[in-house]
Amino acid sequence: MKSYRKELWFKIPGRRAFVNITPDVEACLAESGIAEGLVLVNAMHITASVFINDDERGLHHDYEVWLEGLAPHAPVSHYRHNRTGEDNADAHIKRQVMGREVVVAITGGKLDFGPWEQIIYGEFDGGRKKRVLVKIIGA
Amino acid sequence: MKSYRKELWFKIPGRRAFVNITPDVEACLAESGIAEGLVLVNAMHITASVFINDDERGLHHDYEVWLEGLAPHAPVSHYRHNRTGEDNADAHIKRQVMGREVVVAITGGKLDFGPWEQIIYGEFDGGRKKRVLVKIIGA
Amino acid sequence: MKSYRKELWFKIPGRRAFVNITPDVEACLAESGIAEGLVLVNAMHITASVFINDDERGLHHDYEVWLEGLAPHAPVSHYRHNRTGEDNADAHIKRQVMGREVVVAITGGKLDFGPWEQIIYGEFDGGRKKRVLVKIIGA
Repeated sequence: MKSYRKELWFKIPGRRAFVNITPDVEACLAESGIAEGLVLVNAMHITASVFINDDERGLHHDYEVWLEGLAPHAPVSHYRHNRTGEDNADAHIKRQVMGREVVVAITGGKLDFGPWEQIIYGEFDGGRKKRVLVKIIGA
Repeated sequence: MKSYRKELWFKIPGRRAFVNITPDVEACLAESGIAEGLVLVNAMHITASVFINDDERGLHHDYEVWLEGLAPHAPVSHYRHNRTGEDNADAHIKRQVMGREVVVAITGGKLDFGPWEQIIYGEFDGGRKKRVLVKIIGA
Repeated sequence: MKSYRKELWFKIPGRRAFVNITPDVEACLAESGIAEGLVLVNAMHITASVFINDDERGLHHDYEVWLEGLAPHAPVSHYRHNRTGEDNADAHIKRQVMGREVVVAITGGKLDFGPWEQIIYGEFDGGRKKRVLVKIIGA
């Protein structure tokens, strides 16, 4: 069994954004030399997500509006977590809805994807450096 | 390390449905000959889900009603994604809530499941052929 | 390829609670002797979750309040699933939002975690014995 590990670093200027990281994961896979196996891609921070969906700006706008309706950022005093001095309780909730991680099959040295699948990094509490882990196991 | 891959094909006549695909995944596992490992089962389309829960029709009805309340299909003009000519923005949201994939342990050649776990395909934008990927790695 | 399997048992006295199970998973990993690979940690019951987030009581309170708003327990007659004699339809929904499972990278014999990642068991229908599965594969 072979394994491979890499961290991808991000610093999103604003509070929230969606970024297509599929090319970065493909570069990791090529570097790994693994032809058959699984790749795990996960946010290493608990106010960010990694998920698979369309890389379409209108849809990302819809996610943003819908998530903000579901778990609004303000008033920050609404959340008990924010009594710790944080203002990001909403980001912890949004990340749960969108997910921490994806596991993708590797077949013939490629991400084994359907026609529109793209790996998206979802930032819900930006403005500082954060990481995504890419771990590949296989043969 | 052994690996195995199969696509399951579906064409759901209506817009939304839940289908128990556990027997299909069990057939894949038997065919793979893998006794210890992990199986990844994921929707290859971004308006469908694979998740694990009860195969109980009342519960599936409750999911349907609850998801439609959370991210209504209409008015389709409510979603910016639908300006692309699609009418399925709600399906992209519903799929995020229910999840893209499951990873299941394989022990002694069987799906290592609790008493009521079943693998369900959730369709949120049916009426055309769509696929689920089954990828197994192990020994 | 090596593999390892263990069940963790819980009996939560009340209906709902969040429990940090990271030390239990770390003990499994040490016992497994696996240095590079993946660990799957999943609820074996369909009204409970395993997820990764902060072990902070204020945040857990916020999750509790938010989930109860999203899918209220009462009135139990609101859910068709409860016509089966159950009263836990809301728990099946809450578990979908929070997720069934996590997959964590293993690197150098350790859980490959960011600074605040903790593995949390989320119980939404307690009062009886329930299980979490830990399955590790690697080398």
